Amino acid sequence: MSVMATNKQPVAPRYLEDLKVGDLTETGEFTLTRELIRSFAEQYDPQPMHLDEEAARDSVFGELVGSGWQTLAVTMRLVVDAHLLGGTPLVGASFGDVRFHAPVRPGDTLRASVEVTAVRPSKSRPERGFVDMRVTTRNADGVTLVTQTWSLVVPTRT
Amino acid sequence: MSVMATNKQPVAPRYLEDLKVGDLTETGEFTLTRELIRSFAEQYDPQPMHLDEEAARDSVFGELVGSGWQTLAVTMRLVVDAHLLGGTPLVGASFGDVRFHAPVRPGDTLRASVEVTAVRPSKSRPERGFVDMRVTTRNADGVTLVTQTWSLVVPTRT
Repeated sequence: MSVMATNKQPVAPRYLEDLKVGDLTETGEFTLTRELIRSFAEQYDPQPMHLDEEAARDSVFGELVGSGWQTLAVTMRLVVDAHLLGGTPLVGASFGDVRFHAPVRPGDTLRASVEVTAVRPSKSRPERGFVDMRVTTRNADGVTLVTQTWSLVVPTRT
Repeated sequence: MSVMATNKQPVAPRYLEDLKVGDLTETGEFTLTRELIRSFAEQYDPQPMHLDEEAARDSVFGELVGSGWQTLAVTMRLVVDAHLLGGTPLVGASFGDVRFHAPVRPGDTLRASVEVTAVRPSKSRPERGFVDMRVTTRNADGVTLVTQTWSLVVPTRT
């Protein structure tokens, strides 16, 4: 996929009332090249296991792997491109329970799935609410790399 | 600060036995320029509020703000550069309770503090254990942007 922003076309917004528990979104895919792994690591996570093949062989991973933060960032990109809430912006209130099950490797193609687990109107602010989601990121072999939960702020239709 | 990897000098590793509850690490600083905000957003979070001044004015933020994922990535960079565990690599088992208190703005200079909240030997694998930490990221005015908890895998001295 392109690494530039591609979601320029107008998309209708989705509101709190449009979402329900069990809603499932499957994203497209994103291939994490060696070059992308290196450029992210140089900027945000400059540890030898992400930058240097030889040093990575001596690490607990035994080979060069991408930063876990990059797997999370790529997951966000996948979900943005999937228009999870249509034209409604994705605004996170909190994330939780982020678990790293397996590292990402150069050339891995990632996909994510997002399942709505709760829809919660705000008690104090009727113009918005919260939507809880379980987010799973897998590689092309179907191996789960990262799981996490999101709580997004979503406007109501009123 | 430089945006290139700077921690090339050898640093002695720290082990599980070297860490105790209450240990506090204050990092250096990282300034998030408009250019860095844009390049991260183009790659990982291409939403209008991170890319376009005019669209951002119509968003809930009222101005252009950086991606929350970038605030998290910058926090990692700060902690890596602070040699939190000396020469021991930072390997995350899980992260939790990530809360976004305030958005990051172009030109903000970030700092992080990391406090050890638990040191837990592994029951099944004596060669390693887990260290839980509370991580707080602030801007130059001392405003808290993000709080989170980390559980890192740390080798024992044996």
